[in-house]
Amino acid sequence: MREPFEHRIRVRYSETDQMGVVYHANYLVYMDEGRTLFLASLGLPYDEVERGGHGLVVRKANLRYRHAARYGDELLVRTWVDGLRAASVTFRYELLRLQDHRLLAQATVELACVDLRRDERPPTPLPEAMRRALAD
Amino acid sequence: MREPFEHRIRVRYSETDQMGVVYHANYLVYMDEGRTLFLASLGLPYDEVERGGHGLVVRKANLRYRHAARYGDELLVRTWVDGLRAASVTFRYELLRLQDHRLLAQATVELACVDLRRDERPPTPLPEAMRRALAD
Amino acid sequence: MREPFEHRIRVRYSETDQMGVVYHANYLVYMDEGRTLFLASLGLPYDEVERGGHGLVVRKANLRYRHAARYGDELLVRTWVDGLRAASVTFRYELLRLQDHRLLAQATVELACVDLRRDERPPTPLPEAMRRALAD
Amino acid sequence: MREPFEHRIRVRYSETDQMGVVYHANYLVYMDEGRTLFLASLGLPYDEVERGGHGLVVRKANLRYRHAARYGDELLVRTWVDGLRAASVTFRYELLRLQDHRLLAQATVELACVDLRRDERPPTPLPEAMRRALAD
Repeated sequence: MREPFEHRIRVRYSETDQMGVVYHANYLVYMDEGRTLFLASLGLPYDEVERGGHGLVVRKANLRYRHAARYGDELLVRTWVDGLRAASVTFRYELLRLQDHRLLAQATVELACVDLRRDERPPTPLPEAMRRALAD
Repeated sequence: MREPFEHRIRVRYSETDQMGVVYHANYLVYMDEGRTLFLASLGLPYDEVERGGHGLVVRKANLRYRHAARYGDELLVRTWVDGLRAASVTFRYELLRLQDHRLLAQATVELACVDLRRDERPPTPLPEAMRRALAD
Repeated sequence: MREPFEHRIRVRYSETDQMGVVYHANYLVYMDEGRTLFLASLGLPYDEVERGGHGLVVRKANLRYRHAARYGDELLVRTWVDGLRAASVTFRYELLRLQDHRLLAQATVELACVDLRRDERPPTPLPEAMRRALAD
Repeated sequence: MREPFEHRIRVRYSETDQMGVVYHANYLVYMDEGRTLFLASLGLPYDEVERGGHGLVVRKANLRYRHAARYGDELLVRTWVDGLRAASVTFRYELLRLQDHRLLAQATVELACVDLRRDERPPTPLPEAMRRALAD
């Protein structure tokens, strides 16, 4: 299997909750950053994708939380393409703590490609350059 | 099937993103509020649950996004108990737009009960009062 | 002085941090909600303001934090118009805890009116209906 | 004047709002990260400060927004010690866009040192090591 795209995250104080751990919704933010940095690494910065009239909108997210991330942790986000269709793409994720490489969470997130130029934002095929880059 | 617990949410400007819709991670926040208000309606305010030494931590979340919520929308969050075990509980959710009762999202969230009094926070049975109230 | 616009907020778990209090940036969110509900109460829902081509963007914010808000608290946000000019408006705020009416925070927030229809978003006079409603 | 502590931030998609810019409350998050990385660079990681029983809580924040940050921007946060007293410290900030070094925002944030070991969290002198490091 292809190597994942990897990036690092320092947990921010604002991301913790009163249980002393990262609030669970923030994992979706970390993973969002994973796929947009991944796209940028392929020469497809997401801000340019949107300016070109295409948007990627989340349709499904499945998350499995194994161990809590904490303030002071540095995290490793690993992002894979898990599935690719004409008008959607699914990413798979692992979130690890860098200090001890402990697996903290796993997820898959499915995104549909939509046409931002039309008000109702109908599904539309992935831009050809993106489809090709993600298929490699 | 038992009636769901329902509460209303006004979308906040801060919850939108540059695509002009509610950012997807915020749905987890809405659902969190759903279950804590549900618990409060059963006489089990979650702040008191924590002061009693029990915490509910998210283990799994599965979300299906159908239509985007927007700033200006008022939302209805419907919360059910979907499963109850000795040391965990699963909630099921529907998120609707009040204006037209359109279904925007569905989800299930599984939480484990942990012992906040011990550093490693091991799983522990749900407090008996909570287990009974949720089973009804 | 005119009576303030008042609205209530339940602190959300997601708004806390590991110090066990509401994270300080969230007070700006509460105050944002204060002014948009205030505008709505005057017949000027902010989503319609934007659809009409006008935006209100924050230019200055001054906050004074006195006592921490906590999860489980219900808060009262009091919003006043503190100053009104051709192309800007300043709101003044008090945030109180409902249980004991303790003053938690005070703030002023100055917003400029901008023309959303032009890319560089230049300053533009407040819509006449808004200027009149806020002046009363 | 002493050189500021500098760190870089990539704007996250989650930080934008429907006006297409970074939501104003997030600037407080960027600045919070500035002072905690600054402290870490001085050998005083903030998570260890808290474990030692001291907390820094925001008492005042004054922000001046000049130009909007956008998704796709890389930002430079510059952090200075602006004032130091027995039991409080004030940081001063500049936020610039890296591409063109345009000044986006300026701020000062005053924090009080509190004793986390006592329930009412009374003010307490800054730890001596922190006071010395910040005074240099």
